Amino acid sequence: MPELRKDPIYGRWVIISTERSRRPSDFAPEERRPIGGFCPLCEGNEDRTPPEVLAFRDNGASPNSPGWSLRVVPNKFPALRIEGELDREGEGIYDKMNGIGAHEVVIETPQHSETLSTLPLKGVENVLWAYRERMVDLRRDQRLRHVLVFKNYGSAAGASLEHSHSQIIALPIVPTRVREEIEGSKNYFLYKDRCVYCDIVRQELRQRSRVIAENSGFVSIAPFASRFPFETWILPKIHQPSYEQMEATFYGLAAEILSDTLRRLKQVLDDPPYNYIIHTSSYPEQDRDYYHWHIEIMPKLTKVAGFEWGTGFYINPTPPEEAAEYLREAR
Amino acid sequence: MPELRKDPIYGRWVIISTERSRRPSDFAPEERRPIGGFCPLCEGNEDRTPPEVLAFRDNGASPNSPGWSLRVVPNKFPALRIEGELDREGEGIYDKMNGIGAHEVVIETPQHSETLSTLPLKGVENVLWAYRERMVDLRRDQRLRHVLVFKNYGSAAGASLEHSHSQIIALPIVPTRVREEIEGSKNYFLYKDRCVYCDIVRQELRQRSRVIAENSGFVSIAPFASRFPFETWILPKIHQPSYEQMEATFYGLAAEILSDTLRRLKQVLDDPPYNYIIHTSSYPEQDRDYYHWHIEIMPKLTKVAGFEWGTGFYINPTPPEEAAEYLREAR
Repeated sequence: MPELRKDPIYGRWVIISTERSRRPSDFAPEERRPIGGFCPLCEGNEDRTPPEVLAFRDNGASPNSPGWSLRVVPNKFPALRIEGELDREGEGIYDKMNGIGAHEVVIETPQHSETLSTLPLKGVENVLWAYRERMVDLRRDQRLRHVLVFKNYGSAAGASLEHSHSQIIALPIVPTRVREEIEGSKNYFLYKDRCVYCDIVRQELRQRSRVIAENSGFVSIAPFASRFPFETWILPKIHQPSYEQMEATFYGLAAEILSDTLRRLKQVLDDPPYNYIIHTSSYPEQDRDYYHWHIEIMPKLTKVAGFEWGTGFYINPTPPEEAAEYLREAR
Repeated sequence: MPELRKDPIYGRWVIISTERSRRPSDFAPEERRPIGGFCPLCEGNEDRTPPEVLAFRDNGASPNSPGWSLRVVPNKFPALRIEGELDREGEGIYDKMNGIGAHEVVIETPQHSETLSTLPLKGVENVLWAYRERMVDLRRDQRLRHVLVFKNYGSAAGASLEHSHSQIIALPIVPTRVREEIEGSKNYFLYKDRCVYCDIVRQELRQRSRVIAENSGFVSIAPFASRFPFETWILPKIHQPSYEQMEATFYGLAAEILSDTLRRLKQVLDDPPYNYIIHTSSYPEQDRDYYHWHIEIMPKLTKVAGFEWGTGFYINPTPPEEAAEYLREAR
């Protein structure tokens, strides 16, 4: 059983994989490890993944067989396990709990060669809708506190499979970074009686120098204090506290701007590795006034060095105004 | 002039390099870029660096000429500049200031082939003493709030020069991570009237399962909630709030355990890339009771993916007890 351990200074939780532990010789050097050969995520190989928890299929196709456009399956090597009771205990001054949670893989397309930036719009909307369905379902589990949806694209961004996929991790704790973001937006609201993200959207749409793209529901921007070159955020234009509580029509608009933004990044940066994360509240009712869900996309162009790790303080060699200009003009 | 910008939600500051900005084509792919050829840090090439701010030299050798065992020079491509007045201003809802600060390079040895793990003990002690000298000097500048000392070893860890060196960055703000660490240790002290690091040292020396090495002044451990495989902390055994205020004899003991620990990592992990950071208080007098300086060493063995970036929450595939066992037995 994996273990969750808490840092006694920061309050930061860490998952320690105690089962499939990696020895010194298991860490291959930084070179790109070969990807390719047999793909367990391709259509026809449904028996090589754990049974699906969600799928969008043709009428009449039976579960765990071909005929799907999207599948969600449990991760074969999960960081957390869904079975068991949550058990919290101390070890001297330290705190730990067993690794209860969910770890799922969203297989975004049956085609090995497709990516999120080549998929038709309907395919991208399916992906965003699948995230919503799984969030709603996982939130019903009373042991779990937060659902994380993220994508690693390209091996330099941590993807270990080439086939287009994203991941969902449901946790029995609220991660520190999430808590800090919620706290930050709450403090801003207490001070100004306005949502900080609504203020960002308003100022960016007025200044325009950091706007990359927009549609009737969303805007994508290079944020003012970008940590990384070409960091990009996608925000709903109107106040939307939680990802899974949006009106159904918004998922299509979100798919449109995500697809558009990823294509611009692909064109300007020559198909870069990237990570994106959906930032949404763990307690949507409670955070309704001051939190505003959004997507953060981080192309992986530079190596993060000691300075950044030690301080949470970043040196970004590309001003966001310049990044936005390149991306605005792309296409 | 570089610019410091503050994220309005997290309160996190970012340095935006506005002068030597990197365009899309400047981001080389992830492959290891060739290192080699002419080295500006080697003995004999003193005229290829800015004039030294500190050096340890043979008697009679003149500044900026051969005959040194260690030099500290300003970074030729600094992230921050020391000249000018600190100027804080708003831009709508955003906050920024000009990039005042210092960025220096510690050239740890005149020999291109030496590294911190091959240098004789006296050489390592010189490096640690140089850190202290520069910290004491930079703290005199009233515009600056925090001095960061760190080392990137190996190109995968962000080093752009092969010649053994570390870096010093003095900032006009206290970075969020540093502030959170100080706050965390303060909260622990308010609750228990004990320093959390003293408690960690005490428990680790009793349990021993995560101890890697020790001498009369220091202990190196694999921390309980390690974020990364083979993450290693070096802590003073007795309460020491600040790096630069230690008694002189402790720098020799710190050099001994740092050298010993780096050699173990080198042997077990086949000369891995790594980062280390000296964690010390920005306001040593104020934080005297509850803060305890230490070094955090992070071998760069795995790729940090979207999950980690988005959450500050890590999945570590090697339990620290196993890492410590490998490192304890090395040599």
